[in-house]
Amino acid sequence: MKTFDNLKLCKKDARKGKTIISVGGVQIGSGFTMIAGPCSVESEEQTYKTALPLKKMGVDILRGGVFKARTSPYDFQGLGIDGLKILNKVGKEFNLPVITEVLDTRDVEITSKYVDILQVGSRNMQNFSLLKEVGSSGKPVLLKRGMSATLEEWLNCAEYILEKGNPDVILCERGIRTFETYTRNTLDMTVVPSLKLLTHLPVLVDPSHGTGTPELIEPMSLSAVGAGADGLMIEVHHNPSEALSDKVQAINPKEYSVIISKVRKMHTFITSNLV
Amino acid sequence: MKTFDNLKLCKKDARKGKTIISVGGVQIGSGFTMIAGPCSVESEEQTYKTALPLKKMGVDILRGGVFKARTSPYDFQGLGIDGLKILNKVGKEFNLPVITEVLDTRDVEITSKYVDILQVGSRNMQNFSLLKEVGSSGKPVLLKRGMSATLEEWLNCAEYILEKGNPDVILCERGIRTFETYTRNTLDMTVVPSLKLLTHLPVLVDPSHGTGTPELIEPMSLSAVGAGADGLMIEVHHNPSEALSDKVQAINPKEYSVIISKVRKMHTFITSNLV
Amino acid sequence: MKTFDNLKLCKKDARKGKTIISVGGVQIGSGFTMIAGPCSVESEEQTYKTALPLKKMGVDILRGGVFKARTSPYDFQGLGIDGLKILNKVGKEFNLPVITEVLDTRDVEITSKYVDILQVGSRNMQNFSLLKEVGSSGKPVLLKRGMSATLEEWLNCAEYILEKGNPDVILCERGIRTFETYTRNTLDMTVVPSLKLLTHLPVLVDPSHGTGTPELIEPMSLSAVGAGADGLMIEVHHNPSEALSDKVQAINPKEYSVIISKVRKMHTFITSNLV
Amino acid sequence: MKTFDNLKLCKKDARKGKTIISVGGVQIGSGFTMIAGPCSVESEEQTYKTALPLKKMGVDILRGGVFKARTSPYDFQGLGIDGLKILNKVGKEFNLPVITEVLDTRDVEITSKYVDILQVGSRNMQNFSLLKEVGSSGKPVLLKRGMSATLEEWLNCAEYILEKGNPDVILCERGIRTFETYTRNTLDMTVVPSLKLLTHLPVLVDPSHGTGTPELIEPMSLSAVGAGADGLMIEVHHNPSEALSDKVQAINPKEYSVIISKVRKMHTFITSNLV
Repeated sequence: MKTFDNLKLCKKDARKGKTIISVGGVQIGSGFTMIAGPCSVESEEQTYKTALPLKKMGVDILRGGVFKARTSPYDFQGLGIDGLKILNKVGKEFNLPVITEVLDTRDVEITSKYVDILQVGSRNMQNFSLLKEVGSSGKPVLLKRGMSATLEEWLNCAEYILEKGNPDVILCERGIRTFETYTRNTLDMTVVPSLKLLTHLPVLVDPSHGTGTPELIEPMSLSAVGAGADGLMIEVHHNPSEALSDKVQAINPKEYSVIISKVRKMHTFITSNLV
Repeated sequence: MKTFDNLKLCKKDARKGKTIISVGGVQIGSGFTMIAGPCSVESEEQTYKTALPLKKMGVDILRGGVFKARTSPYDFQGLGIDGLKILNKVGKEFNLPVITEVLDTRDVEITSKYVDILQVGSRNMQNFSLLKEVGSSGKPVLLKRGMSATLEEWLNCAEYILEKGNPDVILCERGIRTFETYTRNTLDMTVVPSLKLLTHLPVLVDPSHGTGTPELIEPMSLSAVGAGADGLMIEVHHNPSEALSDKVQAINPKEYSVIISKVRKMHTFITSNLV
Repeated sequence: MKTFDNLKLCKKDARKGKTIISVGGVQIGSGFTMIAGPCSVESEEQTYKTALPLKKMGVDILRGGVFKARTSPYDFQGLGIDGLKILNKVGKEFNLPVITEVLDTRDVEITSKYVDILQVGSRNMQNFSLLKEVGSSGKPVLLKRGMSATLEEWLNCAEYILEKGNPDVILCERGIRTFETYTRNTLDMTVVPSLKLLTHLPVLVDPSHGTGTPELIEPMSLSAVGAGADGLMIEVHHNPSEALSDKVQAINPKEYSVIISKVRKMHTFITSNLV
Repeated sequence: MKTFDNLKLCKKDARKGKTIISVGGVQIGSGFTMIAGPCSVESEEQTYKTALPLKKMGVDILRGGVFKARTSPYDFQGLGIDGLKILNKVGKEFNLPVITEVLDTRDVEITSKYVDILQVGSRNMQNFSLLKEVGSSGKPVLLKRGMSATLEEWLNCAEYILEKGNPDVILCERGIRTFETYTRNTLDMTVVPSLKLLTHLPVLVDPSHGTGTPELIEPMSLSAVGAGADGLMIEVHHNPSEALSDKVQAINPKEYSVIISKVRKMHTFITSNLV
C-alpha cells in the first residue's frame, strides 16, 4: 500500500484525533453535517424560498454559487458580488452558516467577508495559486476532488492549504470521470473509508454532482452514511425546473426532506449500534 | 436519460416485481444474501476449515474457485474437477448452496452437476459463447460486471442469458478500472440504485475485488447496504496469509463475523425503519 | 520503469531479433502488413466484391468475421461455419491468406482448417481457456488488446499462447475505453513503441475500431506508421451503407486505396531515410 | 457525430482557412513548429546552455517554466519574476520567441511583458478566470488539454479566450489519464485529426508529458507528424539528471537533435508527397 511520503500536515498521525471544524455553531467532523442549497444564487427571493424550508428541516449549512465555473462562456456565470451579499443576508436571516465557491485569487478577500466557508471546486483542485490564497484567508475551506484526481494528488492539495497555516480543510468527493455515460460522473465511495485511513480531515460526499440524477441521490446518500462520511452536500432548489444551472440534478425541498430524515436516522443507528 | 432500447427481458417492466431466485432454501433478491468463501478451493481441509465458521455465522452461500482466471499462465490455475468435488462435498456437509466460476463452454455441463450457481467472471462478461451456454444450463448464473463495462453492455450480457430461457441471473458489481492506484479497483456503488431503476434482477456487490484492501471491506459492505444492494460476496480464507490466490484481499472468519453481524443489523434497520 | 518480471517467452530478450511470422508468402513483422476486409462475412458475393479491389491494391491479408461478438443477442451473430467456407474460398481465389475471429474453444479446431490466422478479440483477451486452445492450434494468432487492459496484462495473454508452444503471436492495438465520447474508443498509439521496448512480437494497429470514424482512419494510419507499427488492420466493405455490422466505421475500397498508397509511401520513406 | 452546438468562434466554419499565428517571425499553424526548452528555468546559465544548441538546430520557440504547478507544496515552485527576466534575456540573445506557463490571474500582466506566448497548463484548463484574463492579454495563448477533458470541454475553454477578443489560441495535447501505469499519461493522438475536423486553430503535441519516457519521445513525435499535428513541444535540458523538475522525462540537446532532424524530414516528405 502506498505511503504518501510527501504528505506531512494532513496525514492521520500528524495530530491527535480527527479535525473538527467549528463554523457558526456547527461542528464539521463531529456528528453528521448536512449542507444544502441551490447550485447558483439567482435572486434574493429564490435563495430565501430555498433556505426557508431547509432551515426548518435542520440543514446545518447553506450553499449557493455566485462565481460559477461553467463549461461554456455563453452560460450563466453567476451574480458575483451581488450574489455574495444575497447569500450573506439570507444566511444571517436563518442563522445558517454559508458556503460558496471561489474561482479567482483576486476574489478570495472579498468573498471571505461574506461567507463562512470557501469552496474550491473540482476544476480548480490543482489551481495552486488559489489553494495558497485560501490557505491564507483565515476561513475554513471545502476542497472538492478533481474529476480525475488520485487520492495522493487530492491530499497534496489539502497540504497546500494546511501548509499556509489554515488547519480547517474539508474534503468533498463529487464523482470522478469514467467511461460510464448513464450517470454524469462515477461517485467513488471507496475514497471515504480510504481517506479515513490516511487523514484526520473530515470527508463529505456530494451525490448531486456525483450522480447528476435526482433518483439516485437518496440511495447514494444512505450509501455515503454507511461508508462513514462526515456529511453530505446536496443541491436543492425551490423550483428545479427554473434553475439557471444544473437544473437536471437539483431536487426540491420536499424531496430533500425525505433524504435528510432517513440520513439522520441511519447515522444515529450506526453510531449507536454499529461501532 | 438513456432508454436502453435494445433490452427486452431484463428490463424492469418486462415482468411484475423483482426476480427472486430460490437456491437450496436461500431466496436471492429477497432479504439480504451473504456469499462468502475462499478465492480458490485449495484442498478439502482448507475448504472445510473456512466453511465451518461461515456456516455458524449464518452465511447463505459458499463460494470457491476451481477454474481460476489468472493474469499469468505461471500462476495457480485452480484444482479443476477435483475442486468441484471438494466444493460439492463441503457444501453438502454444511447444507450450504455452492457457487463457482466457469471459464470454458466445455466445462459448463460438468460444473452444473456439482454446484448450485454458476459464476461468469469479469474477464468473461462479454464471452458471448459462455453466456449462451450458461443460459442453457438450467442453473442460476451470477454475472460479474466487466472491468470497463457500461451498464448498457452489462445488461445486454444478462439479456444473452435470459434470451436462452434462463430467468435466474444475479448481477454482481466488483469494481471498475480507473486511474486510481490506491485501491485495486474502483467500486462503482452508483450502479446498485441505477440497476434498481433499470432491471428486476437482483444486484450484489463484491467489496473484496472492488477494493482489494481488507480494511475497506467493512465500510464498503455497509455502504452497499445503504445503496440498496441485495447481498454481498466476500472472500474469506481460514488463513489468508497462506492463500494460493488473492491473499492480499482475503479476510479471516473472525474479521468476517464482525462484518456479517453489522450488515445484518443495518439491513434490518433499513427495511424496518427507512422504507 | 516496470520490469514485468512474470513474463518470460514474450520478452524482448527471450530471443534474438524480432519475431517474423510467415503466412502464405506474407512476412508479418518484416515490412509493413496491410490486413483489410469486411467486419462480417455476409455472403460470397459481398466477400468477393470486397476482396477483388483489395487484392489489386496489394493488400496482404483478407479479414472477415464469421463468429461475431455482438453487444446485443438480437444483433447479427455471423454466418458461422458457412462464413468460414466463404472466406476460405475467396481467399484461395485471390491467393490471399485469411484471418477470422474465434470466440469459443469448441470452434478453434474447425476454424483452423479454414483460415490462416486466428484472431482473439478484445472482449476475449483474458478468456484464458481460449488463449490456451489457440496456443495449441498450430496457427498464428492475432491478439487484440482488451478495452481496458494494461500492457502488462496484454503481454501476459500473449504469454499464455506462447507457453502452449505457439511462437506466432501478433499484437493488435484497437483502442481503449476512456471518458471521451467523440470517438468510439481512444486509440493508444503509445503502446506501439512501448511494446517495441518490451517484446519481440509484431505490433499492428486497428484504426477502424480505434476511432470508429471513417474520416480519422487515414491520419491515424499514417500516425501508426510514424509510431513504428508493423502493419494495419482496416475494415473495408464494398458498400458500407449496407453492412450488417459496424457500418458506421467501414470505408469503401476507393477510400482504402488512398490510404494504402500513402501508408506504403510513408513506410518506405521512413525505412529508407529515418533509421 | 457530435455537433458541439455551444461553440461559435473556434469552430472550423467560423472563419476562412486555418488560424496562423505570427510570433517573432514564426508562423504557428503553417509549416511545423518546434518548441523546446527546459521544464523549469533554473538559472541564466542553465537556460543559456540549453538554448544555445537548440537555436543551432533550428528550434522555433524556447520554452521554460517560471511559475511551476507542482503536485506537492514542498517541491520546487519556480523562480517567478526572476525566471521571467532570464527567459526574456536568453530569448533575445538567440532571437527566439519564448513561452511560459502562467498560473494566477494576477501574474498575467507582468508575464505578458516578458514573454511572447502565454501557456495555460492542464491543471488550469478550466480555470475560467485565468482563461478570461489571458483572453484580454493581447498575447497568443497555448492551451493544454486537461488530464481528463473531453474535446468539447477543451474547445469551450478555447472559446473563453476567443470570446475575449483574442484570436490567437494554440491547442496542445499532452496526454490524458487512464488506467495504464507504464507511461505517465496516455497520449491521445486521435485528437489531432479530430480537432482538424472541428476547429481552425493550430494543434500541437507534447510527447514529453504525454509519455514521461525519453525512449518514447522520438516515435511519438513521428507519430504526431503522421497524425497531422502543427508542431511539437518537447522538454530539453542541457543536463537532465540535474533538472529541478521532471528530470525523468527530459532529454538532452544531442538526443533532441536526432528527433528534430527526423521530424523535419518526415514533415517535408508528407507535405511534398502525400497531400
